[in-house]
Amino acid sequence: MARIFLLCCALLLALPAVTAAAEEVLLTSKERFSMPSYTTVGGRTIKSLQVGWESYGKLNQAKDNVILITHYFSANSHAAGKYHPDDAAPGYWDAIIGPGKAIDTDQYFVISVDSLANLNANDPNVITTGPASINPDTGKPYGLDFPVVTIKDFVNVQKAVLESLGISKLHAVIGPSMGSMQALEWAASYPDWVQRMISVIGTGDSDAWTTAALEQWAIPIRLDKNWQDGNYYDSEPPVDGLAAALMLITQQALHPLYFNQQGEKLNYHPLETGPLSSIRKSHSIVTWLTNRARSRAEKMDANHLLYLVRACQLFLAGNGDSLAQTMQSVKAKTLFLPASNDLLLMPYMAQKAHEALQKRGKDSRYEELSGSLGHFDGVVSIKQKADAIEAFLKY
Amino acid sequence: MARIFLLCCALLLALPAVTAAAEEVLLTSKERFSMPSYTTVGGRTIKSLQVGWESYGKLNQAKDNVILITHYFSANSHAAGKYHPDDAAPGYWDAIIGPGKAIDTDQYFVISVDSLANLNANDPNVITTGPASINPDTGKPYGLDFPVVTIKDFVNVQKAVLESLGISKLHAVIGPSMGSMQALEWAASYPDWVQRMISVIGTGDSDAWTTAALEQWAIPIRLDKNWQDGNYYDSEPPVDGLAAALMLITQQALHPLYFNQQGEKLNYHPLETGPLSSIRKSHSIVTWLTNRARSRAEKMDANHLLYLVRACQLFLAGNGDSLAQTMQSVKAKTLFLPASNDLLLMPYMAQKAHEALQKRGKDSRYEELSGSLGHFDGVVSIKQKADAIEAFLKY
Repeated sequence: MARIFLLCCALLLALPAVTAAAEEVLLTSKERFSMPSYTTVGGRTIKSLQVGWESYGKLNQAKDNVILITHYFSANSHAAGKYHPDDAAPGYWDAIIGPGKAIDTDQYFVISVDSLANLNANDPNVITTGPASINPDTGKPYGLDFPVVTIKDFVNVQKAVLESLGISKLHAVIGPSMGSMQALEWAASYPDWVQRMISVIGTGDSDAWTTAALEQWAIPIRLDKNWQDGNYYDSEPPVDGLAAALMLITQQALHPLYFNQQGEKLNYHPLETGPLSSIRKSHSIVTWLTNRARSRAEKMDANHLLYLVRACQLFLAGNGDSLAQTMQSVKAKTLFLPASNDLLLMPYMAQKAHEALQKRGKDSRYEELSGSLGHFDGVVSIKQKADAIEAFLKY
Repeated sequence: MARIFLLCCALLLALPAVTAAAEEVLLTSKERFSMPSYTTVGGRTIKSLQVGWESYGKLNQAKDNVILITHYFSANSHAAGKYHPDDAAPGYWDAIIGPGKAIDTDQYFVISVDSLANLNANDPNVITTGPASINPDTGKPYGLDFPVVTIKDFVNVQKAVLESLGISKLHAVIGPSMGSMQALEWAASYPDWVQRMISVIGTGDSDAWTTAALEQWAIPIRLDKNWQDGNYYDSEPPVDGLAAALMLITQQALHPLYFNQQGEKLNYHPLETGPLSSIRKSHSIVTWLTNRARSRAEKMDANHLLYLVRACQLFLAGNGDSLAQTMQSVKAKTLFLPASNDLLLMPYMAQKAHEALQKRGKDSRYEELSGSLGHFDGVVSIKQKADAIEAFLKY
């Protein structure tokens, strides 16, 4: 199953696969964390909350060697390593997490937690609580009765996981994209916990542009006749709408440079005979994008996507009036690593948070990732910043 | 009705309204052109084809003062002037078309033609033939039986309109966005006609990225349960899907700089109480975008949008193997004016066509439009290139 999931990440998106160190395989497993009750930022209660988590490396006696990795929108806590030595590919940031790597598991206890309303709700390697979960009060899936959750709720659940292990301090918190939101939320909301924060392809808040762009992901799901206001757990799920959302997400997370390379592999041509002859036929590049989205949708839940969209829309690190205000509380040293070609969370967003910190006299750094993938360079091309990350963790 | 349409263009999108010259109102009217039969590039026949056209200025005796304006995706041939002096706003490029303006109607006969499958099929000021038209063979709307049409088909119909007026030469052909496709198609397919070509926010072909991006506009319409495989003319039309498509188009045609200014006007905040309290509620910026899309959708036909998407996807100027090959035939002097902040047809696309022409020793120029609107700077902010356009027309 892990193999299939990783195929989804690496092969189905046809992105350069992250290569596992041949000499050594970092092994991990998914653990389960439970809370009898959790109260959301919005003031609602979730009973019997459960999330999965993974770790790499060992917690030292002082419990002060902890690095928290916060995952991106379509990922889960499988940030590095393999579940079994014969897994097709390791976790998404294996290039920088492991023994002797930038985030050195010989030195640090690296931990990651599955988000609430995790997108891959139907992946056996994901443990999450969201609209597809059984509501203990009714014995049926929540659907849209599940409370709205925010990035700060993800952080609060992570904090509970850490506290259950006796941890009360983070050497660093690091995450890409939606993970960057959680990382900066940590630094702003729990400043005494966080010594270092690295935001990769990130932002400090969701501006009007981003909130509207995120909404475009939710719309196709609501249009799908099988969605039925979120009550589809006893019938056909809204696969078409979910696949449409994934097509949009995939394209926005990439860049024309990569996309047109893919077109060349497919011998894409504007005047392909199928789409010229019939309005019902598609170009090769559209078929490619559609098939990949449909494959990825198999383990995902459509309502969970709506809740993740909402969590990201509601994001302002520190949950205050403005970034200018909330960045005041940050005590962590911060490093921002946006991708130059990012079309989803453009570099101006990371710059805005970085500058808000600098204006308040905070220790903040900023460097850009290069690459032809766009937003996804923050996941696939992260190794180019291995040295910068390693140095920052020692700083 | 013209007033309402223009409100859609200017006010509902809340873009800076094009100001009419106070001193003089250029008046125009929609004319009708009919062809008993037309054969498409794909080899299908359309009977009783009809399109609307407008003109500004006078055709001289030699019939050699003709400038053809080719319109963008959601526009029609109302490029300049007003139908009535009390119209709320003039045509979309009135800032550069009129007496004494860059495209001087005291000197040139300026003409524009409604596209086939025009998006605003239900606007009384638009005359078009498309899937919403009655199929003479059945007495019912074509729906998806309407043949696929291409940018070259738009050009061929324009050519028939011009020939009906005794015209056989264009001083220039000029168009923004989808209009730029038609302009370069003219120069490549009918080189003996075209003396000058100006491509604004344009491209020479639809690459894999663009064809996939265009598909994203079509998907919400097909998801709408009212779409019914295009057979909705006797029932409720797919308004939700059409509005969703327009929301996406609107955002992609704009830039965060403009969008976030709009957010400020709305007092947008990520943590608005509505969307925090309920998954069914939306942020102010989403409501704004939704309402504008719904208003604009009123005069539009959803199937027409699918056919326009397909026409743009099938675009390679000159309809050959590659731009490198087809640009060889161009005889026109060419000028490319992409917008620096364009996220829909990024400047690299115009550069590619410009460089293909230069490599073949053609006389081609390239300048970028600035502005905070992104793609839409090619429509709303065109006046900044008035001098460049005026000079090019005299060159």
